[in-house]
Amino acid sequence: MEFSVSEVASLLKGEIEGDANVNVSKFGKIQDADELSISFLSNPKYENFIYATNAAAVIVGKDFTPSKKVRTTLIRVDDPYLCFSVLLDEYHRLTSFQKEGTENPSFLGKESVLGKNVYRGAFSYIGDNVRIGDNVKIYPHVYIGDDVEIGNQTIIRSGVKIYENTKIGNHCVFHSGVVIGSDGFGFAPMDDGSYKTIPQIGNVVIEDHVDIGANTVIDCATFDSTIIRKGVKLDNLIQIAHNVEIGENTVIAALAGISGSSKIGRNCIIGGQAGITGHAELADESKIAAQAGITKSYKKKGTVLLGSPAFERDKYAKSFIIYKKLPDLMHRINELEKKVLSLSEK
Amino acid sequence: MEFSVSEVASLLKGEIEGDANVNVSKFGKIQDADELSISFLSNPKYENFIYATNAAAVIVGKDFTPSKKVRTTLIRVDDPYLCFSVLLDEYHRLTSFQKEGTENPSFLGKESVLGKNVYRGAFSYIGDNVRIGDNVKIYPHVYIGDDVEIGNQTIIRSGVKIYENTKIGNHCVFHSGVVIGSDGFGFAPMDDGSYKTIPQIGNVVIEDHVDIGANTVIDCATFDSTIIRKGVKLDNLIQIAHNVEIGENTVIAALAGISGSSKIGRNCIIGGQAGITGHAELADESKIAAQAGITKSYKKKGTVLLGSPAFERDKYAKSFIIYKKLPDLMHRINELEKKVLSLSEK
Amino acid sequence: MEFSVSEVASLLKGEIEGDANVNVSKFGKIQDADELSISFLSNPKYENFIYATNAAAVIVGKDFTPSKKVRTTLIRVDDPYLCFSVLLDEYHRLTSFQKEGTENPSFLGKESVLGKNVYRGAFSYIGDNVRIGDNVKIYPHVYIGDDVEIGNQTIIRSGVKIYENTKIGNHCVFHSGVVIGSDGFGFAPMDDGSYKTIPQIGNVVIEDHVDIGANTVIDCATFDSTIIRKGVKLDNLIQIAHNVEIGENTVIAALAGISGSSKIGRNCIIGGQAGITGHAELADESKIAAQAGITKSYKKKGTVLLGSPAFERDKYAKSFIIYKKLPDLMHRINELEKKVLSLSEK
Repeated sequence: MEFSVSEVASLLKGEIEGDANVNVSKFGKIQDADELSISFLSNPKYENFIYATNAAAVIVGKDFTPSKKVRTTLIRVDDPYLCFSVLLDEYHRLTSFQKEGTENPSFLGKESVLGKNVYRGAFSYIGDNVRIGDNVKIYPHVYIGDDVEIGNQTIIRSGVKIYENTKIGNHCVFHSGVVIGSDGFGFAPMDDGSYKTIPQIGNVVIEDHVDIGANTVIDCATFDSTIIRKGVKLDNLIQIAHNVEIGENTVIAALAGISGSSKIGRNCIIGGQAGITGHAELADESKIAAQAGITKSYKKKGTVLLGSPAFERDKYAKSFIIYKKLPDLMHRINELEKKVLSLSEK
Repeated sequence: MEFSVSEVASLLKGEIEGDANVNVSKFGKIQDADELSISFLSNPKYENFIYATNAAAVIVGKDFTPSKKVRTTLIRVDDPYLCFSVLLDEYHRLTSFQKEGTENPSFLGKESVLGKNVYRGAFSYIGDNVRIGDNVKIYPHVYIGDDVEIGNQTIIRSGVKIYENTKIGNHCVFHSGVVIGSDGFGFAPMDDGSYKTIPQIGNVVIEDHVDIGANTVIDCATFDSTIIRKGVKLDNLIQIAHNVEIGENTVIAALAGISGSSKIGRNCIIGGQAGITGHAELADESKIAAQAGITKSYKKKGTVLLGSPAFERDKYAKSFIIYKKLPDLMHRINELEKKVLSLSEK
Repeated sequence: MEFSVSEVASLLKGEIEGDANVNVSKFGKIQDADELSISFLSNPKYENFIYATNAAAVIVGKDFTPSKKVRTTLIRVDDPYLCFSVLLDEYHRLTSFQKEGTENPSFLGKESVLGKNVYRGAFSYIGDNVRIGDNVKIYPHVYIGDDVEIGNQTIIRSGVKIYENTKIGNHCVFHSGVVIGSDGFGFAPMDDGSYKTIPQIGNVVIEDHVDIGANTVIDCATFDSTIIRKGVKLDNLIQIAHNVEIGENTVIAALAGISGSSKIGRNCIIGGQAGITGHAELADESKIAAQAGITKSYKKKGTVLLGSPAFERDKYAKSFIIYKKLPDLMHRINELEKKVLSLSEK
């Protein structure tokens, strides 16, 4: 599929600088793009690439001032990264096969109600008394347990498993292997050293515009709900334990784990492989470094935490810098001891 | 579903203190419960909530002595947490839809034998020569390879994959996405830098009363068996490598990894994201902190390990406290150097 | 199935020392093997076991010189571990049920082309315009999206999910729960604090002889390809983010995570639970310790990195040794301060 630079500029409400008649048919990174590609420049540290790029056109900011000659056609917009993403969306919409209808065999339980234009892939399973909104896409091998509710426009990729009673909003995307509503990890210790499984009778509630990456798991609450608020973005292979609440627009990277009953604020960023202990509370806009281990609550907005066990950025940085210099410190102590010994022997 | 407090007390063999005629229809945490709810008080640090709770009734210990006036009805028992769980069980049994029979299409291989009252969900797959006990529940999209054996009362949730030759006991629960018996990670390095895959011809043996969380993986042994002993509780997204043995009633939290051929004792507790190196042995009742990295065997019963690489609790705590004070230590060394210099110049 | 030691020696081109007429029917570790078993001795630290083993026969190196009397039959070869693996292969080939044909129901989309002797398990799903080579095994519940290409001899275990446009080579093995081609984790921050999902229109390319462990996830590229080169071996529960490239014969252990756009060299070894930051480059033959956190590029071949955040082996070891002695260091500083004080008061 080919577009002219003027079509692209018109879609993005951008201004063209250079040859408006050139055509583009591919997307590319500015450093790799060939002469059929359109690219973008957002991060100033990549500026150098724009003077050498082979791209037919590059989307740049309105305030970009070249320091050298630029040969490629420029499309000037307010936010180049965002506009590039709009362009990808449009391309994706035009080129991707839009799945629809029902493939056979698929399974539909009793008293379940489907909205308009729902795609049900082969071998998908919908239990009893399920409510599904309009334009939902249910790919092959999806399992939807009894009494589940799903809003409009939500996309559920192949192999997602959704346990009974889960409530899901609109415009969500769940990738393959996601498990929602599995039993929380709750066991009562018995006198003989064994454990009795505590029944988990709560559920999971997921609000609108939540994206969940492949093989991520969200456990149900013991009673009441594990809650994922609007706009949360979860990467792959994340563990969200029972009774957790994740605030609006919080982003969590792969392999992180949030332990039972913890409450994460809005607009937090949690790095990959970070771990949060149980019953902790993190304020809005907290930033947790990759591999950090959070051992208690931090109720101050915007706290930045690093290390395992974690502490606040300033203190962490000071300790870690000296940690790297420990051999030098040791040497200085050795020297001091020698000098003090010689002084006291004087 | 509604119960009177006397019905609940009778089931739990508890003593009522207060209004025995009040009804309950929900479960709640003591701090959140409303007037339709029953709750419990087990951990003394929540005691304050009992004086303010809206719960209709609260299960408490026989020895609980209120320090203020309590308005709610009390049910006195020996172990409040355990009794609450018994109540949840009973509620769960009465309200949860008990799946049974065979949904179609499902697949049953040759010479496989099913016990009484087995549930086989749609799109479940049972290979050849499989033995399955009584009252086993096999949810949709479960895969059971050839020659697998499964005891009675075991529940296998949607999408679990069980490889050939796995042996599974009674009363187990496996959550969605669990993989049992995948190939151990064994490769022989070749002269050209590539690796040859070593065939893994062993299996996995899982004893009775084992719970396994969503998306956890247990690899088969190279030859002989990877063994999960009676009463083990595994959380979500855990890696159990080939030839590992996990002792009775050991509990492992999410995202932990046990490397090949390691042997974990009985009644151990392993924290989330902890890692155990290969060929290590941990004694009974070992406690491994979250995110700890165990690099060798610890054969003393009840050893507590923290840090990555891990060392024993007392030593760890001493070093870590000073680590946090390193900037202060550095300052003191700077001061010492100045003073020693001035002393030697005297 | 039973073999004579002479048959085994002939297959391995080994030399027999001892009774050539003994038969073996099992494989065993040298320390556990019984009188029906064949075992091997490769690592010299296990040498002691060969003098006590019950194994009927043991495969040893040509240069093995016993220091005591050996009762078992020896088969001398160049590389005992490799030969043992060849034997396992042969056993596996002879005993494992070779799946073939098509089980029903299974789903095959439009214009898809299958090679010779392909196994399609029940409930497997192949989308439109898919190309599959000869002798490929597609187990039950596998999902293969539109426009996927798969080479010859590749084995795809139950429940693997392969997104649209993925390209896969020959002789690969993917274990249950693997997800290939899920969306990269890309979101543009909006002024209101929410995030807009960036469409991910790239794909995943996997070359020949790649093994992928259970529940591992490989995301597709934003545009262009995430690339896994020839001979790469990935363990279970690994996260490979969008636009990553993993070099030939690199081995990655369980629960490791490679962030977006990072490039890992050839013949690297990455330990379990290690994490690599985004846009990092690691040279060929890098060695990353378990639980290490790599925060930047290391372009020197063979660099060994430990710790979180990681630094190079020599420096790391020096700091960590002193870290464990911090209480002692603190004590020495206390003593120094006292002495200096007493000196200055003189």
